[in-house]
Amino acid sequence: MTPTPEAARLNADLAAESPALAALLSPLGRRAAFPRGIPFQSAEARGKRFDGTIGQITDGRGGALPLPSVAAALAGLGAAAEVGRAVLYSPIDGMPELRRRWRERQRRGAPEGVDSTLPLVVDGLSHGLSLVADVFAGPERAVAVPEPFWGNYRGAFVTRTGARLIHAPAFRDRVPDAAAVARAVAALPDGEPAIALLNFPSNPGGWSPTAAEREELAAALVAEAERRPLLAVCDDAYAGLVYDDAVPRESLFWQLAGRHPNLVPVKVDGASKELAFFGGRVGFLTFALPPDGAAARALESKVKGLVRATVGSPVAASQAVALAALASPSIDAEIEALRRLLAERWRTIVAALAACDPGLLVPLPSNAGSFVLVEVTAPGVDPEALRRHLLERHDTGVVAIAPRYLRVAHCSVDAADLPELVRRIERGAAELAGRG
Amino acid sequence: MTPTPEAARLNADLAAESPALAALLSPLGRRAAFPRGIPFQSAEARGKRFDGTIGQITDGRGGALPLPSVAAALAGLGAAAEVGRAVLYSPIDGMPELRRRWRERQRRGAPEGVDSTLPLVVDGLSHGLSLVADVFAGPERAVAVPEPFWGNYRGAFVTRTGARLIHAPAFRDRVPDAAAVARAVAALPDGEPAIALLNFPSNPGGWSPTAAEREELAAALVAEAERRPLLAVCDDAYAGLVYDDAVPRESLFWQLAGRHPNLVPVKVDGASKELAFFGGRVGFLTFALPPDGAAARALESKVKGLVRATVGSPVAASQAVALAALASPSIDAEIEALRRLLAERWRTIVAALAACDPGLLVPLPSNAGSFVLVEVTAPGVDPEALRRHLLERHDTGVVAIAPRYLRVAHCSVDAADLPELVRRIERGAAELAGRG
Repeated sequence: MTPTPEAARLNADLAAESPALAALLSPLGRRAAFPRGIPFQSAEARGKRFDGTIGQITDGRGGALPLPSVAAALAGLGAAAEVGRAVLYSPIDGMPELRRRWRERQRRGAPEGVDSTLPLVVDGLSHGLSLVADVFAGPERAVAVPEPFWGNYRGAFVTRTGARLIHAPAFRDRVPDAAAVARAVAALPDGEPAIALLNFPSNPGGWSPTAAEREELAAALVAEAERRPLLAVCDDAYAGLVYDDAVPRESLFWQLAGRHPNLVPVKVDGASKELAFFGGRVGFLTFALPPDGAAARALESKVKGLVRATVGSPVAASQAVALAALASPSIDAEIEALRRLLAERWRTIVAALAACDPGLLVPLPSNAGSFVLVEVTAPGVDPEALRRHLLERHDTGVVAIAPRYLRVAHCSVDAADLPELVRRIERGAAELAGRG
Repeated sequence: MTPTPEAARLNADLAAESPALAALLSPLGRRAAFPRGIPFQSAEARGKRFDGTIGQITDGRGGALPLPSVAAALAGLGAAAEVGRAVLYSPIDGMPELRRRWRERQRRGAPEGVDSTLPLVVDGLSHGLSLVADVFAGPERAVAVPEPFWGNYRGAFVTRTGARLIHAPAFRDRVPDAAAVARAVAALPDGEPAIALLNFPSNPGGWSPTAAEREELAAALVAEAERRPLLAVCDDAYAGLVYDDAVPRESLFWQLAGRHPNLVPVKVDGASKELAFFGGRVGFLTFALPPDGAAARALESKVKGLVRATVGSPVAASQAVALAALASPSIDAEIEALRRLLAERWRTIVAALAACDPGLLVPLPSNAGSFVLVEVTAPGVDPEALRRHLLERHDTGVVAIAPRYLRVAHCSVDAADLPELVRRIERGAAELAGRG
């Protein structure tokens, strides 16, 4: 399939402003473009005296006509106009006010003069990653990922697009190795475009790099960008959840933006963790480009075309909730209170794990995020067998990650329960090792 | 890429129960499976005394810890448990109670004894269609669609998966021709699997077939199923919005289910139009299979795997709103009141269009849905040029559909305004035809 004339024009715009971006496009990314169909024509009709463009039920002046039972459930949003906005279609790129407010939040940690686009709203972090995969991955595209990694990367990148993962050990001798992902890319032939997945704070690692480690990683990625177009996907799902005051909380995105013409950072973030609104499915995609340039507009058109084709439009109801929260004067204090609660859980589980028999369990270093990763050192004990044993005998659920890890989500366990949870894991490991 | 052992097992289950279904799978559909990853392990841990499986922030007993500003925006849902459900992750297949209630509603029009699965929740109708495209379309797969058609079919099926559309005229001599889509399929070689898109009430047509026309279409699809595996996608976006009492309101899905082993109906519907909750993005996918059979479980695993990989999980906040609405004792009366309001708009626009000069505009037959399709008969007038003229000179927006139609969304215009809207369209057409 050859791109349509519209898609071909976008591809030319991209190539003119950023040859690396153009080289990184997948076959689907090259075909994608926002069509001049109904949403396009509807956007042109906005504000006209008579607007008969769009198939949603309104009062005839652009206001919603929600069913009373739907309106009642959304009444907490406030005035009828707020409720109406939640029941009508969102613009394909998201509600303008939410995009502006999110951009302001994002850029709090950004150095002056670094470019970033107005974030595109998507249906949660996973949707953002899936759209990145659509635009940039594809058959045989190399995607470097630290190991162990969040399993859904496989679904979004490999199963769907046919890309291949190349692995980098996230820990070496149980010490985090941030730059490993850059070394994995280095094994590819010169000139071959590649994607690096950068997830800090990490899932499942619960770890975020120090300033020195970040600079080592950034320098390694820049060095790789001398050899190939390199897409650096900053999966910032757990942004802000850092518990060691010596560790930077800003996104790595700002450190990579503008560093090298061949290094293309994209920021994927959202309200799931940052506003503790997991069920809302509000995510954002941001590029390190001047917001009004031809390359930004071309990428936005491609992403909007794929948002339209995958989910129609991003969820308006959750955007209205996120916007109400961001507009609240207490929102920063609320977020900080939640971070402190999680920091307390993290301190508790780290202390409990430190007391475990290292012949059974060894926690890997953690300082951030929602998880602690535990290496199962009990001789002959498979983590999946231990997981089943904990479910069946100890009324306890954790996640097993091959070949030798358990991931414990301290974010969803009360601090008072964490010592007992750790004791049960340790006892289970001892039992399976024949030392119960 | 070869399917994983898990996907291969699902494919074998499908082939055993429905060879047609197995033959219809796309390459991605063959690879798809719900992984035994975090959501799978988390589902196993549900209800355990200690649950450290999932990366969402809870009170440690499975309850949410919403930010106060987020909780306030959702307070209309009622008790803390309801608000909590809206902010936490939904199960990947959707909230069980919503799935049960939606199935009850769906089956009101279903004959006894016809099988249907528990609907899978997705992020709106478009996401449902996109998942159908993922599982069943793919390079070169023939997808028959009446023309004119909703442009997003091209995005979901062609741009994304590489399928090819084959067209069937939706109208012959300005008379609806429901069975045309079956005749388009008939032109394919014997044995070649195909997909037919069936959208009643139709977009952009605003038309739904009579009982006799439905039976003609069903019989033609059954005849085609003698020659090939045929997926019949019932896009029921506008379900229930029928204004002619002589026209059935039930989904065609129930008339196709169980008719022929090679005829595979899938129902795509949702709250966007049925609950006037456009911005909620709550859709459903339903198969005509026994709910507990191996084929249903295999398809559910594949769809869940792709939901996980495309959007993480379906939006919980909107599911909570939809559930609150469905649980309301007045919901049926509210929906009927909205249908009557739309019926009044439809009657008004039909009357206004009937008075137009047929040398300028001819409305096509309509009896349902949100739109009326108007053929531009004014000599030498291109509908896109007319659309621009109406925007620029008449403060009026409508949608142009090549080669000769305008789509007017009466659903979003007050009945009192519709006569003037039609007058402006007619005047604009006259002006462009040099008769202004």
